[in-house]
Amino acid sequence: MNNKQFFSVPYIENNILEQLLEEQGEIGYYDLPSVNIDNIKNFSKSIKKNNIVIVGIGGSSLGTKAVYDFLRYSNKQEKKLHFCESTDPVLLNSTFKDLDLEDTLFLIISKSGSTIETVSIFKYILTKVELTRENFVIISDKGSPLESLAIDKDLPYFEIPQNVGGRFSVLSTVGLVPLAIIGVDIQKLLDGAQKIKDSFFNKGESFTEIVTKASFYAKNVSKYNINCLFSYSESLRSFNDWYIQLWGESLGKRQRHSYLNVGLTPIGLIGPTDQHSFLQLIVEGTRDKSVTFIKVKDFDVHMQIPDISIPHLEKLDFINDTDFSSLINKQADSIIESLANKGDIPLDIIEIDAINEQTIGELFFYYELLTSTVAKMLDINAYDQPGVEDGKKILRGYFD
Amino acid sequence: MNNKQFFSVPYIENNILEQLLEEQGEIGYYDLPSVNIDNIKNFSKSIKKNNIVIVGIGGSSLGTKAVYDFLRYSNKQEKKLHFCESTDPVLLNSTFKDLDLEDTLFLIISKSGSTIETVSIFKYILTKVELTRENFVIISDKGSPLESLAIDKDLPYFEIPQNVGGRFSVLSTVGLVPLAIIGVDIQKLLDGAQKIKDSFFNKGESFTEIVTKASFYAKNVSKYNINCLFSYSESLRSFNDWYIQLWGESLGKRQRHSYLNVGLTPIGLIGPTDQHSFLQLIVEGTRDKSVTFIKVKDFDVHMQIPDISIPHLEKLDFINDTDFSSLINKQADSIIESLANKGDIPLDIIEIDAINEQTIGELFFYYELLTSTVAKMLDINAYDQPGVEDGKKILRGYFD
Repeated sequence: MNNKQFFSVPYIENNILEQLLEEQGEIGYYDLPSVNIDNIKNFSKSIKKNNIVIVGIGGSSLGTKAVYDFLRYSNKQEKKLHFCESTDPVLLNSTFKDLDLEDTLFLIISKSGSTIETVSIFKYILTKVELTRENFVIISDKGSPLESLAIDKDLPYFEIPQNVGGRFSVLSTVGLVPLAIIGVDIQKLLDGAQKIKDSFFNKGESFTEIVTKASFYAKNVSKYNINCLFSYSESLRSFNDWYIQLWGESLGKRQRHSYLNVGLTPIGLIGPTDQHSFLQLIVEGTRDKSVTFIKVKDFDVHMQIPDISIPHLEKLDFINDTDFSSLINKQADSIIESLANKGDIPLDIIEIDAINEQTIGELFFYYELLTSTVAKMLDINAYDQPGVEDGKKILRGYFD
Repeated sequence: MNNKQFFSVPYIENNILEQLLEEQGEIGYYDLPSVNIDNIKNFSKSIKKNNIVIVGIGGSSLGTKAVYDFLRYSNKQEKKLHFCESTDPVLLNSTFKDLDLEDTLFLIISKSGSTIETVSIFKYILTKVELTRENFVIISDKGSPLESLAIDKDLPYFEIPQNVGGRFSVLSTVGLVPLAIIGVDIQKLLDGAQKIKDSFFNKGESFTEIVTKASFYAKNVSKYNINCLFSYSESLRSFNDWYIQLWGESLGKRQRHSYLNVGLTPIGLIGPTDQHSFLQLIVEGTRDKSVTFIKVKDFDVHMQIPDISIPHLEKLDFINDTDFSSLINKQADSIIESLANKGDIPLDIIEIDAINEQTIGELFFYYELLTSTVAKMLDINAYDQPGVEDGKKILRGYFD
C-alpha cells in the first residue's frame, strides 16, 4: 500500500515515536504481528464442520467480519461464517432457522467473558446444542468466567492477551482462530501488519505518512471533526465498520489532563455508490470533513463493458470496451479531483495493491498506528471506553 | 408511530406550514401516498420469474432496499431481490455467477435515463440476456433516453414523475414496482405515509413533532451538526442508509440567499451492536451530536433466554426467562437514560408499533417531511444536488 497526501501541515515529529515505544508492553497489539501461530493453524486443520458461528459483539466480531467480507467475493472460502451479535429476536430467529446444527461449530468470543449479548445467545444455543468440545470453542481473557468454564467442561480454549483491547484484537486469537478455520491465510495477514510496523518504527514511509496525517487531524480537531473513509471497493464495506469502531471508540474521550470532551467522528463510505448519497454533503456542506480514499490497484477480476450501442443511449458509448476495474478507479479519480479543486477539503489517498490477506493486514496496522498516534497528540487514552459503563449499570438495575 | 422528544427549544411555528403547502405541485413527493396503484398491482401479478434484479443506484435502489431488508427477516418474500448498483467488478462477477438468468427479470431504473453505472451494467447484461419484454422492465422519467428505448423495443415501462426527486422516490414507481413484484403490500406502505401526511398538514401530532424537532436542528446547525439515527432493530439497517442519503444530499448545500455552505451530517447506528462501537464517542466525545432512537414496540417473534445457569457465569442469571424482544428494548432504554443523564445531548425517541409495511411507510414520510421542513428553515433547496456535477464532468473528460 501507499498513502498519497495533500495536507498542508508542516511535518511535525516532536517525540511521538518515543512516546509510542514507551507504551509497548503495556499495550499489547504492537506485538501481535510476530506471535507464533502454529497452535492456531494446527487446531484449525482439525475442524471438519462447515458452519462456523461467531457469538460475539463489537471487537469480538468486527475485525473477523472485515476480513471475511474483504475476501468473500473473490476467494471462495472453504466454510461459511455466521455472526450472532445482536439480541434482535427477528434476526436471531432467522439465523437459527436455516442452520444445520449438526454441522455447526460455535465460537464463544468475549474478552471479559461476561458480555450480556454473548451470554444471552450462548444460553439460547444451549437449549439446542450440547456443551461439548465438538460443538464449542471459547476465546476469552485468562481468569475470565468463560476460561473457567472451558477448563471445567474441557472445551478448546484460546487466550486473548490481557493487554490487547477488543477493538485492537483482530490479529490476536479473536480474529485468527475463526479466520484460520475458514481457510484464510492468517500468516499473510500478520505479514502485512508486520510490514507496516517495521516501516513505522524504523522511521520509514509509514512513519512519515502516519505522523503527518495524525498531526493534521490533531491540530484541526475542532475544524475538521469528521473523518470520512471513502473506499472504492464493495469488499471494504465491513472494513469501514471496523474503522468506525476503532476510530470512534478510541478517540471520543475526555482528555487525560483536562475536563474537556474531544472526539473525531468516523464515517464509512463506499464508492461509487455513495457518490449518489453522501458526496453532495462533502462538496457543498459545512467544511468540517476530511476524506481518505482507498483505491484497489488490481481488482484481479476483469470484466469489460461490451462494445454495444443501446438505441437512444449512444452518447454513453464512450465507456464501451472499458474494464469495470478501470471505470471504478476512474470514478474515484474524478471525485478526488473534484474535491481537490475545492481547495479546502483535506484529502489523502491510500492505494492497496490487491484484495488479499496481506493488504488488509497492512490496512489494519496502518489504522491502529494512526489511532494510537492521534490519541497521543490529543492527550487521550486510546485504549479504554469508560463512557459505556453507565448504560450497563442502568440496564442491570432494570432487572432488580 | 409516536415520537417522544426532549428538546428544550420553544415551539416555533412561524409560517412554515404555508411555505411547505406552497411548494406542493412543484415538488411531487407530497402527492405520492394517494396515487392509484392498480396498474402496478396488475402488472406485478403477471411476473412469474423468481429473481428480480434492480439495476439502479442511489435513489433508484436505496428505498426499495430499505423496505426489502425491513421485511426480509420476518415475512418470507415470494421472490428474491438482487441489487446491481456498483461498478465494482468483484461484486458484479459474484452477483452474476450464481444467478439463474432464465428465471431473472431485470428492472433498469434511472431517473435521468443515462446514469453511467446503470448503463454500464445494462450493457454488460445485454451480452448475456436478450432485450425482450420478458426479460426487462424500464423505470425512468418521461422523455428520457430509457423511455425512448422502451417504446422502440416494446418493453414494459413505468414513469417516474418528473417532479419527484430520486431520494424522495421510494413511494413512486421506483420503489412500488419492484416491491409489488416480490409480494410486498404496497397499499399499506402508502397508507402509512398518508397517515403521517394527514396528521402533519392538519396540524396534528406529526406537525408538532416534526416542526419542533426541525426548529431545534435548524437553530443548532453549527453546534449539533451531526444527527445520529440509532435504530434498535437489525431490520432497520438499510433504512438507516436511506436516511443517510435523504439527509446528507438534501441538507448539505449552499444557502439559497447566501454564499455560505451549511449541512447536517447523518450517521446510521444499530443497537445494541453499536453500543460496542460508536456509543463511547457520543457519551464522551465532543458535544456535536443529536441522537434519535428508533424502537420497535412489538417484534412479533418471541424467543426466551432459557432458565439455564452456566457454570462460572451465575452472576448473569438475572437475564434468565427474559424475552429477547424485552431485552433489546431494555438495552435501548438504558442507553437513552444514560445519555439523558448527561444533560447536554439532544435526544428523541421514535417508537413504531411493529415491523410491517405500514410502519416503514410512516417512517419514510416522517423523515421526508422533516427534511423538507429543516431545509426551509435553513434556506436550502432540499431537492437538487448541484455538488455532484463536477465529478461527472471530470470523469467524462478522462475518456477524451
